[in-house]
Amino acid sequence: MLNRVRSAVAHLVSSGGVPPPNPKSPDLPNTTSAPPAALPETPKSLPARAGSGTGTGSGAPAKTVDTRASSSRPTFLQLSPGGLRRAEDQAGRAVQSPPDTGRRLPWSTGYAEVINAGKSRHNEDQACCEVVYVEGRRSATGTPKEASRGQGLCFYYWGLFDGHAGGGAADMASRLLHRHIREQLKDLVEILQDPCPPPLCLSSSPGAYNPSHLVGPQSCWSSQKEVTHESLVVGAIENAFQLMDEQMARERRGHQVDGGCCALVVLYLLGKLYVANAGDSRAIIVRNGEIIPMSREFTPETERQRLQLLGFLKPELLGSEFTHLEFPRRVQPKELGQRMLYRDQNMTGWAYKKIEVEDLRFPLVCGEGKKARVMATIGVTRGLGDHNLKVCSSTLPIKPFLSCFPEVQVYDLTQYEHCPDDVLVLGTDGLWDVTSDHEVAATVDRVLSTYEPNDSSRYTAVAQALVLGARGTPRDRGWRLPNNKLGSGDDISVFVIPLGGPGSYS
Amino acid sequence: MLNRVRSAVAHLVSSGGVPPPNPKSPDLPNTTSAPPAALPETPKSLPARAGSGTGTGSGAPAKTVDTRASSSRPTFLQLSPGGLRRAEDQAGRAVQSPPDTGRRLPWSTGYAEVINAGKSRHNEDQACCEVVYVEGRRSATGTPKEASRGQGLCFYYWGLFDGHAGGGAADMASRLLHRHIREQLKDLVEILQDPCPPPLCLSSSPGAYNPSHLVGPQSCWSSQKEVTHESLVVGAIENAFQLMDEQMARERRGHQVDGGCCALVVLYLLGKLYVANAGDSRAIIVRNGEIIPMSREFTPETERQRLQLLGFLKPELLGSEFTHLEFPRRVQPKELGQRMLYRDQNMTGWAYKKIEVEDLRFPLVCGEGKKARVMATIGVTRGLGDHNLKVCSSTLPIKPFLSCFPEVQVYDLTQYEHCPDDVLVLGTDGLWDVTSDHEVAATVDRVLSTYEPNDSSRYTAVAQALVLGARGTPRDRGWRLPNNKLGSGDDISVFVIPLGGPGSYS
Repeated sequence: MLNRVRSAVAHLVSSGGVPPPNPKSPDLPNTTSAPPAALPETPKSLPARAGSGTGTGSGAPAKTVDTRASSSRPTFLQLSPGGLRRAEDQAGRAVQSPPDTGRRLPWSTGYAEVINAGKSRHNEDQACCEVVYVEGRRSATGTPKEASRGQGLCFYYWGLFDGHAGGGAADMASRLLHRHIREQLKDLVEILQDPCPPPLCLSSSPGAYNPSHLVGPQSCWSSQKEVTHESLVVGAIENAFQLMDEQMARERRGHQVDGGCCALVVLYLLGKLYVANAGDSRAIIVRNGEIIPMSREFTPETERQRLQLLGFLKPELLGSEFTHLEFPRRVQPKELGQRMLYRDQNMTGWAYKKIEVEDLRFPLVCGEGKKARVMATIGVTRGLGDHNLKVCSSTLPIKPFLSCFPEVQVYDLTQYEHCPDDVLVLGTDGLWDVTSDHEVAATVDRVLSTYEPNDSSRYTAVAQALVLGARGTPRDRGWRLPNNKLGSGDDISVFVIPLGGPGSYS
Repeated sequence: MLNRVRSAVAHLVSSGGVPPPNPKSPDLPNTTSAPPAALPETPKSLPARAGSGTGTGSGAPAKTVDTRASSSRPTFLQLSPGGLRRAEDQAGRAVQSPPDTGRRLPWSTGYAEVINAGKSRHNEDQACCEVVYVEGRRSATGTPKEASRGQGLCFYYWGLFDGHAGGGAADMASRLLHRHIREQLKDLVEILQDPCPPPLCLSSSPGAYNPSHLVGPQSCWSSQKEVTHESLVVGAIENAFQLMDEQMARERRGHQVDGGCCALVVLYLLGKLYVANAGDSRAIIVRNGEIIPMSREFTPETERQRLQLLGFLKPELLGSEFTHLEFPRRVQPKELGQRMLYRDQNMTGWAYKKIEVEDLRFPLVCGEGKKARVMATIGVTRGLGDHNLKVCSSTLPIKPFLSCFPEVQVYDLTQYEHCPDDVLVLGTDGLWDVTSDHEVAATVDRVLSTYEPNDSSRYTAVAQALVLGARGTPRDRGWRLPNNKLGSGDDISVFVIPLGGPGSYS
């Protein structure tokens, strides 16, 4: 990801240079959690709180957990100090995975990562894999509502966080985003388990959902929208992303939340996978050899019209330095009065316009592919953090153009009988920059076919093969792929989540 | 379409009640046109300026053409005064098509229409089918550039305009939109015929494209976007829609441009079909039985987030009457302090919020399906006109929320060998409200199979069958379909354009 942010602006992002204090999570009460083993969603092979990346798992109180240094790696890698040094060695770029021995990740999920080739000091990707228990909201008296006792919800959670301009935001998101999601779901514990449609309006009394809190018979309204359970989970995830981002804004000074991060997270809840993406990571399902895209990338190119519309409606956000118009290349002063191609917030095609003085400003959106930029600075348009990000040599903030909201795609696991070779692959852009969806599917097929279906290490083998394939071989540290093209010099992180077979949810 | 605009607001739209004066088109110079017969794009069966709906065809000067009364129908129907009365008879609802005798429409295009069942006095749909010749822009001296002489372009054009709250906008668009497109294409006549990539910058001198006007070698720039010929045509169409809308704004008082209209137009130019849609009409290709969607509908539901973002960024557009938040039903004053589901401009899911006083305002977007509305008034979010449209019992204008920009989809006709049964079907929402894509494809198949492939009347037969099928049978004027469901009481207009076979472009 670092190559998507001009290194020139890194120094503009506040970082006191002091060791981070022990961050607290004032918004996240230390609710108790029951072990998921008592719940019907428990997978057969569930390890005891497996993959609790940094000790911030659902059962751990917040105050004991936030001591990870900015250069640390997910705890589920179980790295020794020596192992951590090897993981951070940018000359060797050893691929890291959880050890064969010890706890498996939930669903026997495979994971592998590799550090970048020297673009930033540390690996700015972070990852999280958790089983999270959600208890219904407590009543005003502090005791759980009678109706909700023993009826909590359990969700499985995987997250990849691709940091830029510092590792603080990715680190914080990997520790806390799933807890924000849990908080949002607390209000829904009983509603989601009630086969009736969700109530449109609830009484204002605190505490869990109770049918008696329903306000009036719904049928008395002439027109009302149907709201699905699924859309409530989507709303909970969306709001959790926003609250995570707001927490970063509040705590950025005290806790060195430097930089920003893309976030790609997956929830498994009540039979459905929710894939939420904010940034340029990617998720695909490989099912019976078929590729099912589960996310879209958000970049200056894919979000050009949203960005231009904002600049058009709020020109003060552009200062006197930028124009909301896009040109196919930079306009030169000597071209004043000539006619150049342009497009505005309403256009997908191009047309000629006479160049005026204002057109000499730098375009809000410029470049293409991996070189596309917002305000000549950042190459992704959604994610968490970046509250201190300014245009180079300027005080103009970039954050107003960035969105913290994910796009959530839902996949109903019960609609299809999955075999052990069906997987959901999550990867940061380091993977996808040099690997197509079809190449990923081919690697999935090739590697899985060499393992027995009940070998729980096969998904880790796939993740390792994908990371190795994207990194390439050293060739004097030029990191080349077999076809002699350049491998990815970026941080690469990959989850391979099996959708059926041993270690699966069912 | 009328049922998509509350009749209550119709009176708010300015209409002086006086006969329309002879509208002029000051922005559209009366350029001369060469007959298309000399051009390589000419179809074998091209009639002499066929389908010149109102005499406003490409060859007619503007000043002679704008005399169509607001209740008139496209001239290519060749209706006598008696025929016009029958066409406007809302009890009989006779299906209208061009006569078998006389000129065929270009490509043997089929067309049929029917008036609504009494929802508005006149048929507010309009249609246009033209062959338009584009001559390169003239030089400052008034003579065509040497290089452009005899090298003009020809495009085929079909347009459906579904009016609401008056027929003026649809009528004006059917007469003039293709001329705005022609004006936009004039600058591109030579560029589009030059196999080289389009120049990014041109000298400012007026006149046609000339390679010598290219400013500097393109390769000296380190970074520039590739711009395709196709994207220039798309940009020309987009700008033509905007200029058409601006002309309606300028002339609305003098020329009684009442109401607004959805616009669905198709251009065939240099081997490609450009399908531009602004509103809720629809285009599909039926190819070898397969359905290829060629447009998306723009409604308060599909554009909810765009509308909400605008209301959020520009709250003054909402007055004190509307909230940008969406609720699944109207919030009642007695529900203050309770928690209701909502979603904002960033959310696709729903979440609960405590109801505050501001939430009692009417939602900017409400309702679903055909009952979805912007500001409780209009059911489409893109189109031309509506400059006088106000919220009922208010001075709040709705136009800022409406977009005049189409979405343009491109279909390369040369990439596939089409048979005589492959067609592009364009229909106003009166068709699609009661007919699925698959039902349309089945009707296409059924009707075409009863005609010889070289029978040029077969596409009109399909259009008639589609309109009849959507209208239904009278059954005491209840207009019922065979399954006893309600037929469409709306105006219905349909083009059926063959993509291969007799009368086609090749």
